[in-house]
Amino acid sequence: MVSRRNFLGGAGAVTAAVSAAAVSKVAMAALPEPVLQTSPDTMPPLLPSTGRPYNPVVTLNGWTLPWRMNHGVKEFHLVAEPVVREMSPGFKAHLWGYNGQSPGPTIEVVEGDRVRIFVTNKLPEHTSIHWHGQRLPNGMDGVAGLNQPAIPSGKTFVYEFVARRPGTFMYHPHADEMTQMAMGMMGFWITHPKQKHPLIDEVDRDFVFLLNAYDIDPGAYTPKIMTMLDFNLWSWNSRVFPGIDTLNVRKNDKVRIRIGNLTMTNHPIHLHGHEFLVTGTDGGPTPKSTRWYEVTTDVAVGQMRQIEFLADEEGDWAFHCHKSHHTMNAMGHDVPTMIGVDHRQVVKQITKLVPDYMVMAERGMADMAEMTMPLPDNTAPMMTGDGPFGSVEMGGMFTMVKVRKDQKPGDYKNPGWFKHPPGTVAYEWTGALAEPARFKAESAGAMPAKNMPATDIEVQVRKPVRGGGGHAGH
Amino acid sequence: MVSRRNFLGGAGAVTAAVSAAAVSKVAMAALPEPVLQTSPDTMPPLLPSTGRPYNPVVTLNGWTLPWRMNHGVKEFHLVAEPVVREMSPGFKAHLWGYNGQSPGPTIEVVEGDRVRIFVTNKLPEHTSIHWHGQRLPNGMDGVAGLNQPAIPSGKTFVYEFVARRPGTFMYHPHADEMTQMAMGMMGFWITHPKQKHPLIDEVDRDFVFLLNAYDIDPGAYTPKIMTMLDFNLWSWNSRVFPGIDTLNVRKNDKVRIRIGNLTMTNHPIHLHGHEFLVTGTDGGPTPKSTRWYEVTTDVAVGQMRQIEFLADEEGDWAFHCHKSHHTMNAMGHDVPTMIGVDHRQVVKQITKLVPDYMVMAERGMADMAEMTMPLPDNTAPMMTGDGPFGSVEMGGMFTMVKVRKDQKPGDYKNPGWFKHPPGTVAYEWTGALAEPARFKAESAGAMPAKNMPATDIEVQVRKPVRGGGGHAGH
Amino acid sequence: MVSRRNFLGGAGAVTAAVSAAAVSKVAMAALPEPVLQTSPDTMPPLLPSTGRPYNPVVTLNGWTLPWRMNHGVKEFHLVAEPVVREMSPGFKAHLWGYNGQSPGPTIEVVEGDRVRIFVTNKLPEHTSIHWHGQRLPNGMDGVAGLNQPAIPSGKTFVYEFVARRPGTFMYHPHADEMTQMAMGMMGFWITHPKQKHPLIDEVDRDFVFLLNAYDIDPGAYTPKIMTMLDFNLWSWNSRVFPGIDTLNVRKNDKVRIRIGNLTMTNHPIHLHGHEFLVTGTDGGPTPKSTRWYEVTTDVAVGQMRQIEFLADEEGDWAFHCHKSHHTMNAMGHDVPTMIGVDHRQVVKQITKLVPDYMVMAERGMADMAEMTMPLPDNTAPMMTGDGPFGSVEMGGMFTMVKVRKDQKPGDYKNPGWFKHPPGTVAYEWTGALAEPARFKAESAGAMPAKNMPATDIEVQVRKPVRGGGGHAGH
Repeated sequence: MVSRRNFLGGAGAVTAAVSAAAVSKVAMAALPEPVLQTSPDTMPPLLPSTGRPYNPVVTLNGWTLPWRMNHGVKEFHLVAEPVVREMSPGFKAHLWGYNGQSPGPTIEVVEGDRVRIFVTNKLPEHTSIHWHGQRLPNGMDGVAGLNQPAIPSGKTFVYEFVARRPGTFMYHPHADEMTQMAMGMMGFWITHPKQKHPLIDEVDRDFVFLLNAYDIDPGAYTPKIMTMLDFNLWSWNSRVFPGIDTLNVRKNDKVRIRIGNLTMTNHPIHLHGHEFLVTGTDGGPTPKSTRWYEVTTDVAVGQMRQIEFLADEEGDWAFHCHKSHHTMNAMGHDVPTMIGVDHRQVVKQITKLVPDYMVMAERGMADMAEMTMPLPDNTAPMMTGDGPFGSVEMGGMFTMVKVRKDQKPGDYKNPGWFKHPPGTVAYEWTGALAEPARFKAESAGAMPAKNMPATDIEVQVRKPVRGGGGHAGH
Repeated sequence: MVSRRNFLGGAGAVTAAVSAAAVSKVAMAALPEPVLQTSPDTMPPLLPSTGRPYNPVVTLNGWTLPWRMNHGVKEFHLVAEPVVREMSPGFKAHLWGYNGQSPGPTIEVVEGDRVRIFVTNKLPEHTSIHWHGQRLPNGMDGVAGLNQPAIPSGKTFVYEFVARRPGTFMYHPHADEMTQMAMGMMGFWITHPKQKHPLIDEVDRDFVFLLNAYDIDPGAYTPKIMTMLDFNLWSWNSRVFPGIDTLNVRKNDKVRIRIGNLTMTNHPIHLHGHEFLVTGTDGGPTPKSTRWYEVTTDVAVGQMRQIEFLADEEGDWAFHCHKSHHTMNAMGHDVPTMIGVDHRQVVKQITKLVPDYMVMAERGMADMAEMTMPLPDNTAPMMTGDGPFGSVEMGGMFTMVKVRKDQKPGDYKNPGWFKHPPGTVAYEWTGALAEPARFKAESAGAMPAKNMPATDIEVQVRKPVRGGGGHAGH
Repeated sequence: MVSRRNFLGGAGAVTAAVSAAAVSKVAMAALPEPVLQTSPDTMPPLLPSTGRPYNPVVTLNGWTLPWRMNHGVKEFHLVAEPVVREMSPGFKAHLWGYNGQSPGPTIEVVEGDRVRIFVTNKLPEHTSIHWHGQRLPNGMDGVAGLNQPAIPSGKTFVYEFVARRPGTFMYHPHADEMTQMAMGMMGFWITHPKQKHPLIDEVDRDFVFLLNAYDIDPGAYTPKIMTMLDFNLWSWNSRVFPGIDTLNVRKNDKVRIRIGNLTMTNHPIHLHGHEFLVTGTDGGPTPKSTRWYEVTTDVAVGQMRQIEFLADEEGDWAFHCHKSHHTMNAMGHDVPTMIGVDHRQVVKQITKLVPDYMVMAERGMADMAEMTMPLPDNTAPMMTGDGPFGSVEMGGMFTMVKVRKDQKPGDYKNPGWFKHPPGTVAYEWTGALAEPARFKAESAGAMPAKNMPATDIEVQVRKPVRGGGGHAGH
């Protein structure tokens, strides 16, 4: 594996990162060299050096696949293969992916581009790729058995079509589909508009990621592929918090985030501190008359949602799936758990395992984030993530949008923790209001009113409404 | 506990309802007195006696938190604490909530109000409050660890911000979030517009409630907090049918219902007899060009949906989540059940427990609603609710919208069962049509046609379409 | 049962298909003869021979219920009863349905029609019918206990109302609802507009089907009715692939598909090769200002979605639910499975059952579709469906939209497999590009570019972005 230090080392490191595929070079002489990736870091946008120009996207904890031009055709090479994905620091999963990682690299082209994709199958079973959402010849649509023969193990197939409409797409297998998606095989596809499009605004930041889910037993490395509902790792681009990079933007940037879902359930993606519009789907950009503001958009399975907002509030804003279990890491809903069990019968047995069980059951789970409980090797902590004020007690589908007025255009680096202006952080009441906040309150221009004593509060006499026709005896 | 009789008794009762918090009065001398609630009844709208005027909402089986004005700042006091919630008549749950109940009280303010909320933590673990959907300083956003230190047990913290945009919001913890929401900690927040807003219509009725879910074993009191999917109590404002009050309106009222979801799954909320529009989300009011009619709207997790309709059809209209298991009470999908089990192997064992098992298995579950099966103490019946025509055979997320032409404006009381005009109720066929219906049919102005004998019906010769290319052998 | 051969045999066969109900003819002398169906084949549209004219729909693997006119009233007769539904070739389920099949027949009427429906209950328990989405008198709304007494076993009830608004509706029980819908009781209702409607376009093809789900153990016949989430048969109109007929249309046809969901979860319905609009719900047609393009629409429970598209791409296009487990047949997520189990502990036991287990676990599940594993009697294969290029490896909610330029208007027959133009099918790379594709690439008018050697690809130097503030030690 390429170490981080080497990777940052310059031109030599780049060569190292572009390690050759293990397939025979002789057999592939005329194929584009497959570009691999060994790191889960977010790569900076890939500026196009050939072909039509466009504003590239940033793939969260991912990268864009380079191409070569061949007589006017953009040629890409995807290699379907087993990969090791570091899902969070210290926790590695044995997945299937493309070109060294799961998800595979993002493919970025321009509307009207003719695209040729070579797909080499290094998996132990056959595969295919469906180009989700694209207009293309029926025989290029990638449903094995229906539109083409499956790609046997060890073979390379050629797909070729024109990227006819601009938009946000995905690619994933359509052969033994359930298994292969449960193992992490998927990637993003962006077709940039070739000219100014009335429904596609130019933005300052353009992020993309896929929602995926795995069921990996604590201490294990390989997902259980038969799981339909009870996943224990809910991830973005096969990463879980605190392994997901933050989205770092400049104050007043126009920000676009494109999100695709290849799990087995809806994910309501929630942004703090800002409202956003859904400006596009895998079906195309949304007409302006259809747009309304949300703080949570429900991304259904097999759907793409493209959200946009003005990042006009400085700070570190939580950005996550709103299903509370999806912001926790593996805790086994169906194995014995240390709290939340039936109190009446199993206290004795549990107490043997966890001597302080009674205290935990009475006190919730917040201690979990701070205690150093022995975990099996290769297990992501359940609730974790150190913030500036202590543990964030999260996992899974959670990260932050960091808005800073001094974040430079094109700078995607994490600016560190937000420095709050005085008096703008919730604080402990110790008998007096914090000075800055008190000052603001008094000078805020809000309507004046007498300091109403507490005992006068309930002068509004209220009577309960008689309702619930069904419970007469109440 | 304050008895219902005392509560209705007048001024003295009000004092009793406003029981002091158990924290030291000395320590809180300058804090607003926390106002508690001990009843799950629907309280009438709280008319504002200070601050800007607005049209208050009705919280289903809940209430609005009174405030005090302090130099132009609206001060509220929330107390996070263990509570006992009567989820339906005779069935009590040990939850965590605010100010004596789960969910907590609704907070109602006006756009532009400066708001200061004191949050006292009487839970056994730390907590915080996230003001879901609000524009506010990053340090007031409530994500413990990220935006503020968590509020330790026994301490009071101060949040302060201006309610900058009108809308429908929620509040809930963002510290040990999964546990604390599974235990019932959540509440509603309404910011009324300060002046006429082009997208916020004035309505005659404005109801609010939150969707929540619990997993409480039959006979138990405390939710199992590790449950991710297999909840057995699907509730509105921590109440299950027949414990949910009805929504009682006047014919031709314009009705708004604001619904938030803090469960782990989507809830498709279905209204009978009327079509409605979604007029707002937690992101703001929806532009009119975006609105279409629905009879079922899917409320995703962490989302707010504000629906509006003209109540122009008299009657008792079912209003419920359309997932059929969500309109049943606890029946244990993972414990042995009395019917629906594998018939081939366990009939013998089951029959010992339920002597009439064979009959039940052959006949469905309708008998369940009528039989008086012995239930464990403190268990909500699975299928229940007496209607005017027998058992409604429902539970969970089910109630009714009652539309009456003589319901007075501002009267929120249950008017009792609807009196159907003659000939408008489905009836048993005993060889002749009911007279009123027959009369209507003959005079309805529908196009006349000959009484077509049954044997002529199939003159349209139809051939099956050959389809399903996949099954050649069929 | 009527054999397929007899059914196609002509007038005599039609008579056979219209077998009389088993209830006493004497008791029902004046009732419309109940028309039954014994085949799961797609019946051609039923052209109205009485009443107002309309363009009929095609019910996928279903049919439309004939009616009789009685003094201007359209009279239908539904019989609720146990049925045998062939869910796919060779796999039969014991369900409850209407008039011989599950789902029941589609009811088609015209806006303004007065409709009288006789409902005979031949189930072992009481029932009722709710006319989901209709405007009607409260006593006709069908919620047993609330709006009417339940229909006892053996009795016939009468519903009567005017179909007041055009649209797409459903019918289903509202008595022991969970059981009866889990058993398959449901049907479609179309109210056609009586005149040209500005939001209801005329279409060339109009298909309808319901999403439903069952939990039937391999080898068993009867659904387990207590299942809330872990269904193993995800079906369209109680059929699973390859038992679902294809939707066969002419190139450039305007196609409408109406889909209703009566399962317990959302189904994201995905069409390949085309974008579509959602043009209506059970609340009515959507205004044009609200419509945007999708390739996947999420149909929530208790919802109706009416999608429309121009079928301008020839081919066999996959059309399916995008949840990958919903395109597999029964495989038992909670019974021991042959792969995907915990490798560390149970390999020994599994190997005894499945001698080649280790090989399977290493190679995914694609072999499953091809091997002839012994299945219990009456079990749908897990991954199946022969396509022109081999196994499609699908089940459940999967079929195809077949677009052909020579499909005649009104011809609903399956045209067989698509014949791909040369050079338009993904193909194996054997050292050279396929000739036709190469020709097209060179003449495609895409911008010329030099054949960039692979070793030049990575000239764009990229540095990883430092993100993920939470993992300082990384």
